Formats: sequence, C-alpha cells, structure tokens
Amino acid sequence: MPDTRTTSPEVSVSTGTFPNSRKVHVPGRLHPDVRVAMREVDLSPGAGEPPVRLYDSSGPYTDPAATIDVTAGLPPLREAWIQGRGDVESYEGRAVQPGDNGRRAAEAGCLARFATGRSPLRAAGGGAATQLAYARAGIVTAEMEYAAIRENLGREAAAECPRDGDPLGAALPGLVTSEFVRDEIARGRAILPANVNHPECEPMVIGRNFLVKVNANIGNSAVASSVAEEVEKMVWAIRWGADTVMDLSTGTDIHDTREWILRNAPVPIGTVPLYQALEKVGGRPEDLSWEVFRDTLIEQAEQGVDYFTIHAGLRRAHVPLTAGRVTGIVSRGGSIMAKWCLAHGRESFLYERFEEICGILRAYDVSISLGDGLRPGSIADANDAAQFAELDTLGELTQVAWRHNVQVMVEGPGHVPMHKIRENMDRQFAVCREAPFYTLGPLTTDVAPGYDHITSGIGAAMIGWFGTAMLCYVTPKEHLGLPDRDDVKTGVITYKIAAHAADLAKGHPAARERDDALSRARFSFRWNDQFNLALDPDTARRFHDETLPAEGAKHARFCSMCGPKFCSMKITQEVREQAAGMSG
Amino acid sequence: MPDTRTTSPEVSVSTGTFPNSRKVHVPGRLHPDVRVAMREVDLSPGAGEPPVRLYDSSGPYTDPAATIDVTAGLPPLREAWIQGRGDVESYEGRAVQPGDNGRRAAEAGCLARFATGRSPLRAAGGGAATQLAYARAGIVTAEMEYAAIRENLGREAAAECPRDGDPLGAALPGLVTSEFVRDEIARGRAILPANVNHPECEPMVIGRNFLVKVNANIGNSAVASSVAEEVEKMVWAIRWGADTVMDLSTGTDIHDTREWILRNAPVPIGTVPLYQALEKVGGRPEDLSWEVFRDTLIEQAEQGVDYFTIHAGLRRAHVPLTAGRVTGIVSRGGSIMAKWCLAHGRESFLYERFEEICGILRAYDVSISLGDGLRPGSIADANDAAQFAELDTLGELTQVAWRHNVQVMVEGPGHVPMHKIRENMDRQFAVCREAPFYTLGPLTTDVAPGYDHITSGIGAAMIGWFGTAMLCYVTPKEHLGLPDRDDVKTGVITYKIAAHAADLAKGHPAARERDDALSRARFSFRWNDQFNLALDPDTARRFHDETLPAEGAKHARFCSMCGPKFCSMKITQEVREQAAGMSG
Repeated sequence: MPDTRTTSPEVSVSTGTFPNSRKVHVPGRLHPDVRVAMREVDLSPGAGEPPVRLYDSSGPYTDPAATIDVTAGLPPLREAWIQGRGDVESYEGRAVQPGDNGRRAAEAGCLARFATGRSPLRAAGGGAATQLAYARAGIVTAEMEYAAIRENLGREAAAECPRDGDPLGAALPGLVTSEFVRDEIARGRAILPANVNHPECEPMVIGRNFLVKVNANIGNSAVASSVAEEVEKMVWAIRWGADTVMDLSTGTDIHDTREWILRNAPVPIGTVPLYQALEKVGGRPEDLSWEVFRDTLIEQAEQGVDYFTIHAGLRRAHVPLTAGRVTGIVSRGGSIMAKWCLAHGRESFLYERFEEICGILRAYDVSISLGDGLRPGSIADANDAAQFAELDTLGELTQVAWRHNVQVMVEGPGHVPMHKIRENMDRQFAVCREAPFYTLGPLTTDVAPGYDHITSGIGAAMIGWFGTAMLCYVTPKEHLGLPDRDDVKTGVITYKIAAHAADLAKGHPAARERDDALSRARFSFRWNDQFNLALDPDTARRFHDETLPAEGAKHARFCSMCGPKFCSMKITQEVREQAAGMSG
Repeated sequence: MPDTRTTSPEVSVSTGTFPNSRKVHVPGRLHPDVRVAMREVDLSPGAGEPPVRLYDSSGPYTDPAATIDVTAGLPPLREAWIQGRGDVESYEGRAVQPGDNGRRAAEAGCLARFATGRSPLRAAGGGAATQLAYARAGIVTAEMEYAAIRENLGREAAAECPRDGDPLGAALPGLVTSEFVRDEIARGRAILPANVNHPECEPMVIGRNFLVKVNANIGNSAVASSVAEEVEKMVWAIRWGADTVMDLSTGTDIHDTREWILRNAPVPIGTVPLYQALEKVGGRPEDLSWEVFRDTLIEQAEQGVDYFTIHAGLRRAHVPLTAGRVTGIVSRGGSIMAKWCLAHGRESFLYERFEEICGILRAYDVSISLGDGLRPGSIADANDAAQFAELDTLGELTQVAWRHNVQVMVEGPGHVPMHKIRENMDRQFAVCREAPFYTLGPLTTDVAPGYDHITSGIGAAMIGWFGTAMLCYVTPKEHLGLPDRDDVKTGVITYKIAAHAADLAKGHPAARERDDALSRARFSFRWNDQFNLALDPDTARRFHDETLPAEGAKHARFCSMCGPKFCSMKITQEVREQAAGMSG
C-alpha cells in the first residue's frame, strides 16, 4: 500500500514503491544525460525468470531515492536540454493578478503562492521552440530520445517477441528508435507535449504507432474540492498509470491550483483555457473576448501547461445542426462558444483568431488539442451531422497548426454505440491526416450512470485498437458528480486496461510480455508474483486475502474460488507430470 | 434500496421494488393464462412521457403483491402448461442419498431438506418432452409465447423505432412473435431452457436473434459460503438482471443447496454435473465412471436443473495439444476429464456416451451446454489448436443433440485479445451451425486481476455484438477467490452493460428506448428519472448525493461535476431558448 507522505503542512501526497519493484533508469545514447525512469518487478526466486520491466508514469514519487517536497516542486529535468538548444529567451512575463484566481483583491488564497524564482521562457525572435519544428529540421531532441527509450520497455535487450495482432493500418516498428519518434512527430502523426516552462516533465509521445496513452481529468469545481486535494489527485492518478493529466478546475484559486500541479507534475498537463477566461468575465459567456482569452493563453503558457484544449472547430453555422439532438451540446467549451456566437451573432473568435493562437503557442511549445465541442452526449446523437461538420473544421485547423509548427491532436467523442465507433476513427484519419486522435470513452450505452467507466472502457478499448492515440478516462462519477480519489483510481485502472487491451490487439511488440509473465505466475501458483505484476497489486492481494489471508496460502496450489480439489491448474499440472512420466 | 426480508429463520433474501417502478403483467393471446412479468418505470409528472417498460428477470421478489416464503418456494407457474401437454408421467424418482450431499450418513445438513411433496416428471414412453421437439412439431407452447412477449418489452403498442445498428448477419425481427420463437428453436438457433421439474421458472429464450442474455455463476466451494448465502446470491443476481444462474457448488450439501436454489428460482438454473459426480468419488478424477455420472444426471434432472454443462467435446487426442500452453487447461471440467483420459488411457466417457446422455436429458428437457474444456486461460493460449480442435467436436455433438431433440448451446472462451474475438464467433457459427454461443468473457488482457469484470466486459460486449447469445459474467474476484454478494452485483451490472451495448450495436429494435429516455431525463435535469432508469438506481443516486445531498439538488440544473456556471446542458438550453426567441 502506498505511504502518505506529508511534505508540507497543507499538502500530502502518496509516495512509496510498488511491491517488489525497483525504479531503474535507462541511459540515452545520443543524449548521455537522458535517464529514462522505468519500473522493474522482481519475481520470486523460484520463478527462474528475469525481472519484468514496466512503463512508469509515476515520476519520482515512487522512487525511494528521491526527496519529495511539494513546496519546492520536482527537479527541472529538462532545463539543460531546453537551454542547450539556444533558441529560447527568458523574459519578465505577465504579472499574476487577483482575477487570475477568481478574486477581487490580492487576498490570500487557500495555499501560499508557489515561488520557483524562475522567469518564463519563450522562443527568441518569434520562432517556434516546438518539438515539431525540431523534428522537421531533422533534430533528434533529448525529449525524443527519452520517449523512444520509454516506449521500448527495455525490449532491445530481450529476444524479439513473436508479432501477434491486427494493427489495422498502424505502422508499429519492432523497436522504437529516436529517429522513428522524430519522424512521426515531423509527419504530424505524433506529438510530444513539452512546454519550455514545464521542465519537470518526463517526456512521452502520443501517436497511433506508440503505446496507447491515458489521460486523467482532475480539477475542482465551484462546488467541491481544494488545491491540496487536486495535487494529491494528480500524484494519485499518475501512480496508477495516467500518462497525462488535465486540470479542469473552474472555481477560485484556479491559477494557484495549476501552479501547484505543474511544479509537481512529471507528466504533461493539459487545460481548457476557456474555463479560466470565463471565470475572468464573471461566468457570462457573452462577455468573453479575444483579449481575455489571449491573456489567459499567455498566463497559462508561462506557467508551463503542455497542451490546451481549444474548441476552435465549433463554428457559428454548426449550432443549428444541434437543434434536433436529444442532449444538445454536452461539451462545456462547446456550449460556452455556442452561446457566445448566438449572443454576438458572429463567428467564433477561436476560429477567426486561430492563426494568432498558433503564433502564441509555438513560442512555448504548447500543443493544441482541438476540442470537439459538438461531440454526442447520448447514443441518439452519435455520428450526426453536427459532430462530423465540426470534425471537418478540425481537419482544416490541423493543417493551420502544422503550418505554424504547432503540435496538434484532435479530440473525439463521447457517446457512441459500438457499431458506430469505427466510422469515427476512419473519418478522423481521413480528415485530420492521422494527427493523434484523443477520445473521451466513447460510452457505448447511456443506461448505466454510476458505471460509466465501464460503458466507456468498452468503447475506449475498441477505438484504441482502431487507432486512437490517447484515451481520456471516464470515472464512475461521470454525469453525477466530481470524482474523488477513489474514483480517479478506478477510472485510471479501467483505462489502463482499455489501453493495454488495445496495445495487445494492435500487436505492439512490448505489450504481451506482462500478460505472459503474469499468466505464467498464475499457472505456477506464484501468488505474490501474480499480485505484483497486476495493474493494481493492492486490490489483487486484498481480494485474495479476503478468504485466504494466511501467508501459506500465497504458495498454495488453489484459491477459494474452486478450492483444492477443483483447481483446474493444479489438475493440469498433475496431468502434465503424468504425461511426462508416461513418455519418460 | 432493497429490503431484506427474513422469510425463514435461516434464509433471508432481498425483496422490494425498484424506485418508481411497478410490476406489470402482459397477457398472452394464444395462451390466455400466460402473464408476462415486466417492470414499468414511471417518470416524473413534468416529463410528459409514458412509463418505460423494462425486461425483468427478478421474479416475484420485486413484486409487492407476491408473498415470499423461501421455505415454500415460488409458485409453480408452468405446472398447468407442462401437464396440459399430456406427454409427461410422474414417477417415484431416485431416492436422495447422504452421498449426494457429500456426507457419509444421513446426518443433518446446514438447512432442512426441502419438501415440495411433488414426484418428478419425465416424458412418457421414452419420448422427448423438449421445447425443440414441440417446435419441430409446429407447436407454439405457452413457454414460447411467454418468451416472445418478454422480448418485445411492450413495443407492439409503441410506434416502431427507427432501426439503427449493424446486425452482422443476425436476423432480428421488428417484432418477436411466438411463431418466430418457435421457428428459431426448431432451427436450433435458439434454446428455451425449461426442465419439466422446474415449474417455477419464467420462460426466456437464448439465441442470436434475441436480446443478449447474461448468466451469473454462484455456488459454494470447499473453502467458503453456505446454503443460505447461495440462495440470497441467486435472488440478488436476478434482481440486478441475471437471466440465468449457474450453481457451481462443490462442497458438502451440494444436493440441498441446489434444491433450495431451484425451488426459489424464477430463472433457468444451470449446473456442471461433473462437479457433484467428482464429490461422489471422493474428489479423485480417475475414480469417475459413467455410472456415477449417469446417476448424477438423473438426480439433477429430477430436481429441475434447466441446463447441464457437459465437457463431452474434450477428447483424449486433444490433451497433448495443450502441452505447450502457458496456462494448460483452465476449465475445471476439462482438467478433470483430461486427467481421467490419461489415467485410463482411453477416450472420454462423456464423448463415448453422448447419445445416452441425450437420451436421458430429452426426457426432462434439460438443455445441454457443451462445455469448452480447452478454452484458453491466457492471452498467449487464445485461438490455438487445442481450442479449435475441441470446437470442431462440439459442432459434431451439436448435431447429435439435435438428432435426439435435445436443446443445445455451445460454450466459448475465455481469454482472447480483441483482434482474435471475431474468429471465435465466426468459427462457432460455421462449425455449430448457429447453435447459441455462450461465452465466458472473453477477457481481453491478463494483467488486471481484481478487475476482470472489466477486462472481460470489453470482450463480452464485442462478442455479444458479433452474435453470442448469452454472456457468462466474470466478477472482480475472478482468479482470486469466491465472489461475495457485492462481487455478484458488480459482475451482473457489468455484464448487463455489455449485453445492452451489444443489443444497441446489433440494432435490436427494443434496445434504445431506455437509453433515449434516460438521456432525455439527463438533458432535462430530471435527476430522479435519470436515477430510476439506470441499471443501478441505488448507486447512481448515492454517487450524486455524495456531493449534493439536498432534495432541491434533484431539480437543479447542474451537478457538482461542473458546478452551476459550467453545466453544458444548462447553457445549451439557454442557447436553444435564445435561438427560439430570435426566430420567433
């Protein structure tokens, strides 16, 4: 079980290693200061098997050698790489204002302001300090090498696994090289979200030819949660495998919450800047303006947000297409922009100013996640004219972003019955030219509020197989309330299952090793190895121990499900022994 | 929340209606004494919508008008229909022996022996008292009419929904008629499990052209659980939607446990007779014999078991095909028979005696579920030679069963990655000529013990869409221990989601009504209607109330997830009002 380490009077986060696990660091070749963090699970001595290496998104929090101080933040891993490229300048930056936190005056927020002492960075001379620009220039950055090594899980050393899977058009290489990562980014088929002001981030890559990634949404609302809770939710989400985290906070202290999260986040952080912009105008969509939005982009880019969801594809003309829908517009950003368009009787400023937006973002290497403001919110509304009209616009904007050297991914639905999922992926590939697809679920039925991690986990696994690069999790609280810490864990684990099932189906060469190691442990009654290799060792062990708590049962050749006489695996082993004896 | 009604000093079961729900009974036409139980959910007055009619597997336990006395059992609904056909005879039957309960002498079990006062029935004159025989003879039984009305959910009255779905070869009719049910059974494409000694059962039909069904496994093991717990697990499982229940008990009191379950079960009950046969020979597979097995078949058929899983497709020659497997043989029945074959150096008696087995079963109308003793127990073993060799034998045995007028379905895997699922369904269709497929999961990855309801729910939804007729649930405890009551509920709800998602994808005409009604309630902020239409109203309400418990929040135009300013649905409604004002 994780420790809870109180590192500040107000914020405590979950730390501690996983059982029988060690943090290992695999060095880079091109960039010798690259040290890629991974987890290795040691198996029991009787197994006669090497340790199993696992992808590790949890950052220093699971490293016993790391000193965790959330008031100081994580070490700036990427700082030397960013500075070493010589294309950024430090500048004074925008002053934080009380309104950034939804307050009228400089009153105290719920936590002290975070002080890094750093000034923000941006590309010098109006350039593009983006991984896309580097990739197109043929430069393999340290970030690219880090991500490449990470994808391989140490496979280089192991014998090449036999390939098994149906990639459905994906081009999964046997071994991910740094050059492959560069090439995928240059083609726009992958992104490496890495704001120059988020040096704490451990680089990772999102694209159809890499492991399927999972995003966890956190963030307070006007009704619930605090800054400290959100920092712990972030740490908790990455502990269980979230590859990126979106901070969707909407209440007061929105700026400070984000600062605390970013400074302690080893994963890319995404936001929806429109939420804060709306706070700045008192919650009235019609009062939004390009100026307020622009100010918010710069504020958040200077803080280090790695990707922005921007609903620039929802055009004024799309709104009437939603009139006959069962659930209208269910994207918050989408509904806000629809209201703005109607109130002003004009085109969305996000669409009209999209080139300017790109011009800002490329200075910091903030990736764009093109929001699907018209995603279906019910089975009835799936794959309708509104949804696909917006998707066409997202395809157009993808090209604009690429022209500006801005990394871009595209968001997808939503609520979609199984037989309509494939069309979403195929259209996105065609219209957005394989820019990474980033989907919410999709939920395959509307009838199970309280279990929408499952209704959507089904759709997520399928669309991940079909080619989606990152899955945005859905928690059991979806449609009902703000997720708490338990919901976050359930959501992340469910989506790790979906992503891993997708990797297996695509035939990712690194995927099946964990399944096979766990199944061998299961068949050999190495119960502890089975638990330790599980996505959630704590729960696996606890469930087993509910009926058979004794330590001896960890070596028993049965469990309480079937009891000793009926264990098929035990009988099979007897069959094998008998067969071996007969042939010997 | 359900009431817990203590109706006997030792057994208490969950009763009580669902919120805002009524039990309704739809009368038959051909058979006027048919009264098909369904649930109707009344919506709030402001909705202006008719009640939503739901398929209801919960039996009299959710009927406030019913008297529940588990010591007396349920009323024998089918008794007059069975007798009315005039083809069965009552006979003395086999005397219950201490060994049937795994005891040496007539010592007291943990509950009193169940006394119905009824003698067992069987077909007179060596005939076949099966729904298949009737269907082939052109007879539409009361059971068939019951099942037909049940499938329609009162759709006859409602306007025909627009069809939406990809049936992938299924032939779903616009309206299920009694004649359609008869025809599907006659073709062998559906079964209606209905032992003449289980008159308490409310008829239902299993086939690819009907709603996808869900089975829940219960049963004690030598290590855990009691008779009373198992009776409540059965009642609890059907409350949440299990269409059939398998009693997989293996400990002592196995006969009496089954009797208590059957007399109180309004759904078909399945078993694996081999488990009890093995108990009778002291748990030594090599001591099994045709005589002990035959005795067990008759014992259980006389009690009223509706379908038997029989692993007759595992032939001696298949066993060596499993030698290279990662997880060998994971079916309990399969491993027992493999051991028997090896110990005796001869062909399986289940295979050799299959015609005799059919001769016994047709006298009672026990359906056969052909067990897949060689199903893969890990991703590594999926779709291998052993599995498909057995499937070919199952196809051969399907024909034998049909020749004897025995209803038959075929069991399927297991652990299968997503890209290999479709092949399972397509081969089964080809080899078993569309006899109903009944699959366990499949689990789409091995890495998540503790969450195998989810790893398998993904595969179950997909294979359900592809054509599987019934999904055997997997609970969170799979691989780790015996499921308790909470696990049973989680397993059933997860599989109801999978089955419903499959119905939607296939385009079952009755499926989407519930989704649409719930989504309309969601969009209109009719919170109570949303909860009441959910698969699990209790959990949906509880999750909402964790952050907004006040009664007023049940009418609020937001929840704690986004708070009042950011609710997209609220904003959309404002957009619509605004748009209406502009055009008006």
